[in-house]
Amino acid sequence: MLSFENDYNKGAHPKILEALLKTNDTVLSGYGEDQFTKSAKQKIKEACGLPEAEVYFLAGGTQTNMIVISTMLRDYEGVVAAVTGHISQHEAGSIEYSGHEVLTIPEHQGKMLASELEAFIKDFYADENHEHMVFPGMVYLSHPTEYGTLYTKEELTAIHKVTEAYEIPLFLDGARLGYGLMSDDTDLTLKDIAELTDVFYIGGTKVGALCGEAVVFTKKNMPAHFVNSVKKRGGLLAKGRVLGVQFDTLFTDDLYFEISRHAILMAEKLKDLLKKKGYRFFLESPTNQQFVILKNDEYERLRKEVALSFWEKIGDTETVVRFATSWATTDEELERLEEIL
Amino acid sequence: MLSFENDYNKGAHPKILEALLKTNDTVLSGYGEDQFTKSAKQKIKEACGLPEAEVYFLAGGTQTNMIVISTMLRDYEGVVAAVTGHISQHEAGSIEYSGHEVLTIPEHQGKMLASELEAFIKDFYADENHEHMVFPGMVYLSHPTEYGTLYTKEELTAIHKVTEAYEIPLFLDGARLGYGLMSDDTDLTLKDIAELTDVFYIGGTKVGALCGEAVVFTKKNMPAHFVNSVKKRGGLLAKGRVLGVQFDTLFTDDLYFEISRHAILMAEKLKDLLKKKGYRFFLESPTNQQFVILKNDEYERLRKEVALSFWEKIGDTETVVRFATSWATTDEELERLEEIL
Amino acid sequence: MLSFENDYNKGAHPKILEALLKTNDTVLSGYGEDQFTKSAKQKIKEACGLPEAEVYFLAGGTQTNMIVISTMLRDYEGVVAAVTGHISQHEAGSIEYSGHEVLTIPEHQGKMLASELEAFIKDFYADENHEHMVFPGMVYLSHPTEYGTLYTKEELTAIHKVTEAYEIPLFLDGARLGYGLMSDDTDLTLKDIAELTDVFYIGGTKVGALCGEAVVFTKKNMPAHFVNSVKKRGGLLAKGRVLGVQFDTLFTDDLYFEISRHAILMAEKLKDLLKKKGYRFFLESPTNQQFVILKNDEYERLRKEVALSFWEKIGDTETVVRFATSWATTDEELERLEEIL
Amino acid sequence: MLSFENDYNKGAHPKILEALLKTNDTVLSGYGEDQFTKSAKQKIKEACGLPEAEVYFLAGGTQTNMIVISTMLRDYEGVVAAVTGHISQHEAGSIEYSGHEVLTIPEHQGKMLASELEAFIKDFYADENHEHMVFPGMVYLSHPTEYGTLYTKEELTAIHKVTEAYEIPLFLDGARLGYGLMSDDTDLTLKDIAELTDVFYIGGTKVGALCGEAVVFTKKNMPAHFVNSVKKRGGLLAKGRVLGVQFDTLFTDDLYFEISRHAILMAEKLKDLLKKKGYRFFLESPTNQQFVILKNDEYERLRKEVALSFWEKIGDTETVVRFATSWATTDEELERLEEIL
Repeated sequence: MLSFENDYNKGAHPKILEALLKTNDTVLSGYGEDQFTKSAKQKIKEACGLPEAEVYFLAGGTQTNMIVISTMLRDYEGVVAAVTGHISQHEAGSIEYSGHEVLTIPEHQGKMLASELEAFIKDFYADENHEHMVFPGMVYLSHPTEYGTLYTKEELTAIHKVTEAYEIPLFLDGARLGYGLMSDDTDLTLKDIAELTDVFYIGGTKVGALCGEAVVFTKKNMPAHFVNSVKKRGGLLAKGRVLGVQFDTLFTDDLYFEISRHAILMAEKLKDLLKKKGYRFFLESPTNQQFVILKNDEYERLRKEVALSFWEKIGDTETVVRFATSWATTDEELERLEEIL
Repeated sequence: MLSFENDYNKGAHPKILEALLKTNDTVLSGYGEDQFTKSAKQKIKEACGLPEAEVYFLAGGTQTNMIVISTMLRDYEGVVAAVTGHISQHEAGSIEYSGHEVLTIPEHQGKMLASELEAFIKDFYADENHEHMVFPGMVYLSHPTEYGTLYTKEELTAIHKVTEAYEIPLFLDGARLGYGLMSDDTDLTLKDIAELTDVFYIGGTKVGALCGEAVVFTKKNMPAHFVNSVKKRGGLLAKGRVLGVQFDTLFTDDLYFEISRHAILMAEKLKDLLKKKGYRFFLESPTNQQFVILKNDEYERLRKEVALSFWEKIGDTETVVRFATSWATTDEELERLEEIL
Repeated sequence: MLSFENDYNKGAHPKILEALLKTNDTVLSGYGEDQFTKSAKQKIKEACGLPEAEVYFLAGGTQTNMIVISTMLRDYEGVVAAVTGHISQHEAGSIEYSGHEVLTIPEHQGKMLASELEAFIKDFYADENHEHMVFPGMVYLSHPTEYGTLYTKEELTAIHKVTEAYEIPLFLDGARLGYGLMSDDTDLTLKDIAELTDVFYIGGTKVGALCGEAVVFTKKNMPAHFVNSVKKRGGLLAKGRVLGVQFDTLFTDDLYFEISRHAILMAEKLKDLLKKKGYRFFLESPTNQQFVILKNDEYERLRKEVALSFWEKIGDTETVVRFATSWATTDEELERLEEIL
Repeated sequence: MLSFENDYNKGAHPKILEALLKTNDTVLSGYGEDQFTKSAKQKIKEACGLPEAEVYFLAGGTQTNMIVISTMLRDYEGVVAAVTGHISQHEAGSIEYSGHEVLTIPEHQGKMLASELEAFIKDFYADENHEHMVFPGMVYLSHPTEYGTLYTKEELTAIHKVTEAYEIPLFLDGARLGYGLMSDDTDLTLKDIAELTDVFYIGGTKVGALCGEAVVFTKKNMPAHFVNSVKKRGGLLAKGRVLGVQFDTLFTDDLYFEISRHAILMAEKLKDLLKKKGYRFFLESPTNQQFVILKNDEYERLRKEVALSFWEKIGDTETVVRFATSWATTDEELERLEEIL
């Protein structure tokens, strides 16, 4: 069936499979101590303009969020996120499983405001009972957000200033980072992000890899014996090469950016098509996820022919659905969609 | 200094100390296997009208909430609470420490609405992605609430119907239960509460004991080997007698109710006094906690003479403070307060 | 460099990569809801002779052990393992991270004895203080063990009888199960294992896959909402196909067994070679891991030319090392080893 | 019934009850911010000869062990203990509940040897795979041990040297510290212990208090925002005065030492009596716990008249039982015991 359900419904970019094939017989050390992992780390540090960064590969997004957050928070701290943040809603309580609270603040099309973040932290310290409350010990945001929206450089800088002032790390969830960086509507580069955050990750699973996320610790702040904490949480792959080879490929000849750009171009075409057909957008998204409001019966009819993602109900009669393009979306798929709509 | 700061600023009711003294030389088994603990359990079951109930004594409120919730939730579940619920704000993230999320719904003067609770659960199951989200596995409410307000029998019955329909336990935090039961403005009896909840606790720390809360499992639903889970969480006292003797005293000759009633009478006098003096109330509370809005400078002046509880800021110029009476409040204290105001 | 370091130092079996390539463009649902995952599950159930079994794919061994154990144990329970069990020594405390203790009993060349297991459990219940101790709530064993040894059918049956008598699940860690099943020295079949255990897993990572372990719940005992618990622990891959396609390939035309057999044949040749060269064996292993005692200087010399696995020190002068063959070991590698030795 | 079952089978020392009574009407701040708690801390610091120490009161032993250990360990660390250490056997897995492993080394009449401790840590770092194993991050010992035995100054100094060399804290569980300090057979003073450990606690529950343990951080090493971590684990009492007043009393006019000495004198009499009657001792204990080997039928007969503590079975015919004296044991009780024996 035709699918715009998500950006992980196909396998991997052909060059990744090719690289896995080519390196398959090479004997390599396990647990990420192989040469491809090292090379991939080097290339990512260069792309970030941060020779001193520390890079670590993990298998999936929820795992990455949980491991990064729970190893960086102190015992008495929680992580602040927009109420729609992925960790707050859609990760089955994995932050809580690690013993920490997600402290939520309002969202605006998926984004947090620096001003509201600052007010939240200020109010916390102004509260005379705060020693009995969970301390804000980290800020989490996703870029693109769960709604496909993007922070501007000014917005991210403002948030960065707050976290810097309160000396707590800023963590950017980049599960779809490529799609954010290659949007027409962004003034944030990878180097900006590396500079403005304390830790972030470059998503692979949704951007052409079979699996894998590249965590970048930007301030020599990787937790001590991180590999041990990763294993303790079940996140250490024996064949670390699987992640190393993939990211080494993605960061060779700008493949990561190129395929991300493709998804954006496809998203623009999709947007035009949906607009042309008169669909109502739930919000304006500059990346690969597009949110459309459908009457419930329209949704039921459409989903028989195109796989879409349920987002949320609006009252009893309408449903918000998500159309996603990806590195693998083809013109042919868009044409078939046009016919169906 | 004169204090209306809280309901735990004095020791224990004299009869409790007397009982501790009287039983002091008696050799007793440890860990709650003593005769006073057994007698106390029996008396509580009778007061609840529930001969089949299981009663267990713990030392404090946060501990009780954490132990009850974390032993009753399944792995994939969280607990639903009003956003102002004590577990959600003022317990340092102890539910999260146990690996579970607190799922928040709106509050109305500290109370949740059955309709909003039901909508929350319904929406959860209507969400096509709910298998990746934290399941609502229990409902937590406090009675009196953190704002001193009370559920009516109709309201609690409506919430009970929701939890019954979804087959999840309803847990009532009764840290100040006595003050709720003895309010003039309630139609809920202890037996009603025992009938309408799956588990609740009768607070001792704030109602005349040195420490101690009596958990009542109303449906033969005490978790298996509960004593083990209590010890695992550090909550088992070697001298279980300390809790047993206290609750045995509190539930002899209706002492618990009598001293709770005293606090209510004192609260009524306090309310009259505050009204007479022209203070603005933050909300109407029928129990022992009274919330008043003060100008910040007034607050600063007043707190030099009377210990009060900071509640929250309203903008930059006003502060909500709490006056609390208790089983130990004296007429003399009210008179001194009148002089100061 | 020549390597007998472990059984995960090369990529995947060519047929697996081929299948990944072939299915790469197929649009599939995420999170294990795809047709290849379903097909793989079906094939595994057939291979186990258990049409009613439930099969679930996870990415790695530590993750699998942690998820299975922590979702099946009750709050007051721990898991019993031989002191050399992988969960007890080499998984960075991941079972403890999940809140449960590993209760250790003696090992005999890596194996536990049914008699000692039974005595341990009996003693636990005979201890009058056992309500304050961690209850034995599951038994964990690895087959092959960490020392390459194998349980006989009689031994596994005896252990099964103990766990059945005490109504606790028996969990078999089959990270290298293929190598155990294809050994010349075993009378245990896959069907026997499915019958004698409550849950076990069929290792992929060490037997030809890029990553992946197939957990088999044999008694309709998969924990409710297991996918949620998996996600909560960071173990859910968005592209579940990665695991599904691999296991579908491994269980087509007996590939899993065939490549396991290859490793055993290579191990037999290796053993002969080592014996011929006069090496002293630490113990007699019938599977793909061979343990040899080397003088420390010999070890230092050898490791410059052949990658080996450090196992343990014996006093100050000797070291136990592990040689491992795998599905990917070649005759040429054995020849090169012979030259070096 | 006559009882030598344990040292917590009576209430509190009369002076403690008297002090609770005397301070009962005094209005005090909650959560340990009261003047009695401050005074108690000051007296304990003086008794320890450590003006810079930080003292914190908790309610019980398991709670104290769990809170101290889990707040001081780093993510990748576990705590080393003798295999008979209380945390390893009799605390329902509470250290594991906090996410950390108890790493066990051999015991010798309840004690660990510095040499075996050092070997254990050395071996850990010598193991080439140790990055995948739980790091030894703290050493736990009890003094007196679970068998009533005591470390000599030389032994404790040797252990201290090991922990100092590896820069990990040494934690001494002093649940029965008074009985150790007042033994005839010790050369360790309270000041020695304060000097040789990084953190330890002075037990109250078993030495005359209703409940309560005084944790002493000796090196300005109390974890940041400790009160928050305590609350998070359910260990914060609203009426901190209950602990403060008790310890203030115990450390006034050497009461703690005086009542501990009484228990030792009673133990010496008990020992003489048991020897006279021909009982076989399981080991030689210089403190208030005495372990005796009884034939099973003898045990069954005796326990009908005297409450004793089951310790362990020896084969099928004998049982080790514990007789304990305490601050509250009377000469009359010893006389009654003599009659019975």
